[in-house]
Amino acid sequence: MRAYFSRRYRFSASHRLNADFFSAEENRAIYGKCNNPYGHGHNYIVEVTVGGQIDAQTGMVCNLVELDDCVRREILDRFDNADLNHDPLFVDRVPTTENLCIQVHQLIDAAFHKAELILVRIEETNKNSFEYPVDRRFTAG
Amino acid sequence: MRAYFSRRYRFSASHRLNADFFSAEENRAIYGKCNNPYGHGHNYIVEVTVGGQIDAQTGMVCNLVELDDCVRREILDRFDNADLNHDPLFVDRVPTTENLCIQVHQLIDAAFHKAELILVRIEETNKNSFEYPVDRRFTAG
Amino acid sequence: MRAYFSRRYRFSASHRLNADFFSAEENRAIYGKCNNPYGHGHNYIVEVTVGGQIDAQTGMVCNLVELDDCVRREILDRFDNADLNHDPLFVDRVPTTENLCIQVHQLIDAAFHKAELILVRIEETNKNSFEYPVDRRFTAG
Amino acid sequence: MRAYFSRRYRFSASHRLNADFFSAEENRAIYGKCNNPYGHGHNYIVEVTVGGQIDAQTGMVCNLVELDDCVRREILDRFDNADLNHDPLFVDRVPTTENLCIQVHQLIDAAFHKAELILVRIEETNKNSFEYPVDRRFTAG
Amino acid sequence: MRAYFSRRYRFSASHRLNADFFSAEENRAIYGKCNNPYGHGHNYIVEVTVGGQIDAQTGMVCNLVELDDCVRREILDRFDNADLNHDPLFVDRVPTTENLCIQVHQLIDAAFHKAELILVRIEETNKNSFEYPVDRRFTAG
Amino acid sequence: MRAYFSRRYRFSASHRLNADFFSAEENRAIYGKCNNPYGHGHNYIVEVTVGGQIDAQTGMVCNLVELDDCVRREILDRFDNADLNHDPLFVDRVPTTENLCIQVHQLIDAAFHKAELILVRIEETNKNSFEYPVDRRFTAG
Repeated sequence: MRAYFSRRYRFSASHRLNADFFSAEENRAIYGKCNNPYGHGHNYIVEVTVGGQIDAQTGMVCNLVELDDCVRREILDRFDNADLNHDPLFVDRVPTTENLCIQVHQLIDAAFHKAELILVRIEETNKNSFEYPVDRRFTAG
Repeated sequence: MRAYFSRRYRFSASHRLNADFFSAEENRAIYGKCNNPYGHGHNYIVEVTVGGQIDAQTGMVCNLVELDDCVRREILDRFDNADLNHDPLFVDRVPTTENLCIQVHQLIDAAFHKAELILVRIEETNKNSFEYPVDRRFTAG
Repeated sequence: MRAYFSRRYRFSASHRLNADFFSAEENRAIYGKCNNPYGHGHNYIVEVTVGGQIDAQTGMVCNLVELDDCVRREILDRFDNADLNHDPLFVDRVPTTENLCIQVHQLIDAAFHKAELILVRIEETNKNSFEYPVDRRFTAG
Repeated sequence: MRAYFSRRYRFSASHRLNADFFSAEENRAIYGKCNNPYGHGHNYIVEVTVGGQIDAQTGMVCNLVELDDCVRREILDRFDNADLNHDPLFVDRVPTTENLCIQVHQLIDAAFHKAELILVRIEETNKNSFEYPVDRRFTAG
Repeated sequence: MRAYFSRRYRFSASHRLNADFFSAEENRAIYGKCNNPYGHGHNYIVEVTVGGQIDAQTGMVCNLVELDDCVRREILDRFDNADLNHDPLFVDRVPTTENLCIQVHQLIDAAFHKAELILVRIEETNKNSFEYPVDRRFTAG
Repeated sequence: MRAYFSRRYRFSASHRLNADFFSAEENRAIYGKCNNPYGHGHNYIVEVTVGGQIDAQTGMVCNLVELDDCVRREILDRFDNADLNHDPLFVDRVPTTENLCIQVHQLIDAAFHKAELILVRIEETNKNSFEYPVDRRFTAG
């Protein structure tokens, strides 16, 4: 009896899309208004999906308190009310939400061991969302 | 031409997370505030996904009226405005939403035969959701 | 320069609508499925609106940390993961959401003094909401 | 490093579910109120998921401006504020949302080549949604 | 102890904005794409707010079953899965959502007498909403 | 026959709450994490409510195209993908959402004359919203 458990977290951060290896014109062409100087920001919604055997006694895939503690420590304390461009992870990596999604996945995956990390999905706005990885959800079951 | 059809239902119920084979201290440690005496409650959202061939004449995977009838009879009439702990299904099973998800799946799967049942997803709150089963969606296509 | 500031909180609780001064038949007729034995539950959303002069220096009506502290202490610690019928406030008062709305208003109003309490709105489900009081919003401006 | 990018679009259209090869009675029995003369309408939400390698320089799966241009041209300009029954695609095909989902998928798939089209999901109402295709998401990773 | 009770209903309908006393060019200029021939449609959300004294015994402003019965009979049975332009109310009145709002208000006001009708709010899309009347909410308290 | 028409807009911006006339310690105490260096960001939702007589011919309070044009020009082009702290309006005014709400109100009020501007409501996150002014909605009816 395996199941998935998904939990949503929120943080507010700013970012500016600009890559050093592109010229100012190229950056403007590629990122449009997201390249505006001084940056802009989002209320990011992070949905973390973990999976595993339902414990026959507790009836749970894992204890949400432990997942919350991990995500608070690894993700929310780090990114909430922050400017992503000033985070060491984005010194040589453009803070697109694709890249943010992968970094969030790696931070949780390295720190959470009570269930299998299946998927990280980030909503940047109510129109845009991103998922990583693309295949583990389907082999991990 | 196969497609998925998902439909959302809602019911309000109460539950208390407490397992007889744990001591009072263990129950409190495992379930936290969800172990509070007298229970508490949720507005559960149940999303049922069925899949199958699109009928060349009707243009439908299945008739939603038939799915609605089944879910009303098997799930909503049973669980809406109820205390899950008093349901026979949860006499010797903790009514976590993981376990609820599996029971809802089994009740629909036994009663609905007009399309293949692919997935049951239950939102317990706007932060927590659960999915069962973890693999049929991906092999059933 | 006066403005309103509204903040949303959530808690999960159970209740059963049943009044001692009605017979079992009357209770069933009045409250329908909400009178089911053992109770049922909801994810309540509480929206608290306060109003006042925008402080010329801080640019704020009030500090949300102070409002959060008050609401956590007075409302969330008390009602989250609780059975409303066992709260002293509902010993001789049916825990309808109308009555809950008034009690939440009175608890906050007695404890929060950093801005004027204008309105308490409670969503019981995504279909039902309640507001109290009905007139202060419009005279308090 | 592959990821999914999903983007939501909205359009309002009307449709009437009625198939010429059924009698009036059959149409009424199959489609119920959706067979009402003169049609009715919906605010459709279309979620388009594309996938691919994250470009090491731009940090993006694809440029959302290009996806937006394609969807506006192929889908929104065609279906927004339209009656689906009068679209050539639905001359001999009932405009169920299952069929709409497939047509939207084919229109985008034929026109967008900057990333792989993985999934089209259409919400017809806040209760009903449809996905097509059922298997590519899981093999395309 | 007076309070407001608001309840949300949903129906799907089509309409076309076109006024006989304008020329085709004028209609096009005024209504834009909403003037498209054959019409288009929406999932309308209707929020009905009633107010009154909280009954000291039942703890309720009014019984939601009675409000539901009234709205189902007067509004949903009439407009759900319908084309507004074919309703007698819109024979000589453009079915804008402003006008729909007033008609819904008048239909409920004439039929519901268990509490005071305070406000009808209609969401046409997730971007547009309308309220009528503009003043009773504020004097009715 | 007067009614309200409300329309929602969205923009993403960054801000940092910091006032020059406070010390670093005071700023930290007052604004907490919102005082973090480099700022952070939000997806702001702006709801603009206008009111007026429903035109007997068009059936509309005002033409939404004209409101959209005004809001795009005055608000979205200015604040979307921007850093509020670098806007001239916030040179000597902390960019709290209270202050943003007032500035948005004044910019629209000065530019839009097709209906009466009743209310500007800004959602900063899904927990926080602000309204300005507090009294015109209730006298303007």
